[in-house]
Amino acid sequence: MFQPGGDKKVLCAGLICLDILSVLDHYPVEDTDNRIERQIWQKGGNCANSAAVVAQLGEQAEFIGTLATGRAADMVLDEMREFGVEIDHVVMHDGCDFPSSTIIINTHTGSRTIIHADKDLPELTFSQFQQLDLNWYKWIHFEGRNMTEVSQMVNAVQEFNHSASMEDRIIISGECEKAKYQPEYFISTVDVLFVAKEYAQHHGFTTAKAAVHGFHSRVKKSATVVCAWGEAGADAMGPDGVHHHTDAYSPGQVVDTLGAGDTFNGAIIAAMCRSLPLDEVLKFGCRVAGRKCGQFGYRGLRE
Amino acid sequence: MFQPGGDKKVLCAGLICLDILSVLDHYPVEDTDNRIERQIWQKGGNCANSAAVVAQLGEQAEFIGTLATGRAADMVLDEMREFGVEIDHVVMHDGCDFPSSTIIINTHTGSRTIIHADKDLPELTFSQFQQLDLNWYKWIHFEGRNMTEVSQMVNAVQEFNHSASMEDRIIISGECEKAKYQPEYFISTVDVLFVAKEYAQHHGFTTAKAAVHGFHSRVKKSATVVCAWGEAGADAMGPDGVHHHTDAYSPGQVVDTLGAGDTFNGAIIAAMCRSLPLDEVLKFGCRVAGRKCGQFGYRGLRE
Repeated sequence: MFQPGGDKKVLCAGLICLDILSVLDHYPVEDTDNRIERQIWQKGGNCANSAAVVAQLGEQAEFIGTLATGRAADMVLDEMREFGVEIDHVVMHDGCDFPSSTIIINTHTGSRTIIHADKDLPELTFSQFQQLDLNWYKWIHFEGRNMTEVSQMVNAVQEFNHSASMEDRIIISGECEKAKYQPEYFISTVDVLFVAKEYAQHHGFTTAKAAVHGFHSRVKKSATVVCAWGEAGADAMGPDGVHHHTDAYSPGQVVDTLGAGDTFNGAIIAAMCRSLPLDEVLKFGCRVAGRKCGQFGYRGLRE
Repeated sequence: MFQPGGDKKVLCAGLICLDILSVLDHYPVEDTDNRIERQIWQKGGNCANSAAVVAQLGEQAEFIGTLATGRAADMVLDEMREFGVEIDHVVMHDGCDFPSSTIIINTHTGSRTIIHADKDLPELTFSQFQQLDLNWYKWIHFEGRNMTEVSQMVNAVQEFNHSASMEDRIIISGECEKAKYQPEYFISTVDVLFVAKEYAQHHGFTTAKAAVHGFHSRVKKSATVVCAWGEAGADAMGPDGVHHHTDAYSPGQVVDTLGAGDTFNGAIIAAMCRSLPLDEVLKFGCRVAGRKCGQFGYRGLRE
């Protein structure tokens, strides 16, 4: 593993959107009027969530992605700033619809029903990514989507690493979550591979242990594979090939599991930046993700 | 009927909120992920909607109500300004939750499922209303809620009218919609009483005609009663006691009926400001409301 540089930043490159959570004690019957006490507006998007967690856990964090100009963008960017995440390189598009999700949380069953507005906002391009001075970063985390562009970004960081001194090399991590986005390019290229349960299941794995073993055989020699499996905890395997498992951390009462995976990823990145041993990294990730499930949103996750 | 003054404004006093419409071709099954093409963010609230319609139809319109400060407020206030509605007297509250509704529209069945976040935002008080210089207004329309305060507002306008010259008198209208808010004070006090189908049904009426007759016997001698009944059209009765009926105007395909009643009310007010005969007023109201049902939102309603 590379030793991360001192004052450099963790960059998360991916999606940011607005999540509007309606919290009910039932699932609404069609064509009825429902009054609720609690509605939560928060930034969403895997990478935006992970960046907010990384920043909270004490690392300098930056997010890059695209946004449609307007009040909703101002809202989520305000929130990113509050979390201490730098957003100076976010690419703004005029005249596009703002990406947002309406999420109905039924506290009685714990179900989350998601209505995501998949709009016309272009995703981050390689040429926009090239505007970044890579000397500022010690870690770049990519979301597994928009892979035509993202694979070029990964290549550019690898090229930078080839000519950089050992201490200036950037750790690259990638999240394989949705199989439909075909994030396979990450498997052979990144230093830390996050395999989501959904993605592992798509590839026939039924446990985190099996997934970690399976993917570890395909990653770079120096790479680490991490896989969280909800209530079954999380597993990981580093370059030494030793398998680690940690049980899930129970928050007492599960309140909101939305973004628990993004929180886990952010906590793993923050722990690895501190060069903790892998079993400690894994425990830390599960603790922070568990704490998140015991509350709404992403605030107050620092221990 | 009073003749409305020349350059004076129509004031609508009531609720403004944010409506977030998710348009699907089905109703979401609980605990599923749904991707949609179309999500619409628009200002909502009966009086805010009616004010936007009045302004579009060529009258100077102003809205007064309360809002929680923040980006969501900026968004709906921007929209009101775009509609040409004055909002200078809107009362802003810091640290409150922003009132908003999540509305799932199933285009297959036409159903509208509403999840309204009933939050901690205080409603407009009489003392805030007293800050207005009533000389600026020719018409004030009240929403039938928050009646402890609103009844005092109605009294204040009536007092103003008592000492005003004939041409300076303000027409007062009130909307009886939700029985739970007990808007009965309007019945004996306002010049134009809007009786919503929901309210009429609550009082045992099964047609607009019956409702108009029933309420006309209880209003002031100079008052007009107007009642819209969805697809069955609308009825009205003025001071002369002559009953008028107009069939609903069909927009071809019904797309979005949300706020059709608010649109009808706004169109009636605009038409009465032009001193049209009551049967023309009613036809105009049905035409504008029908056009609204053939489209999403409230734009482009001017003939």
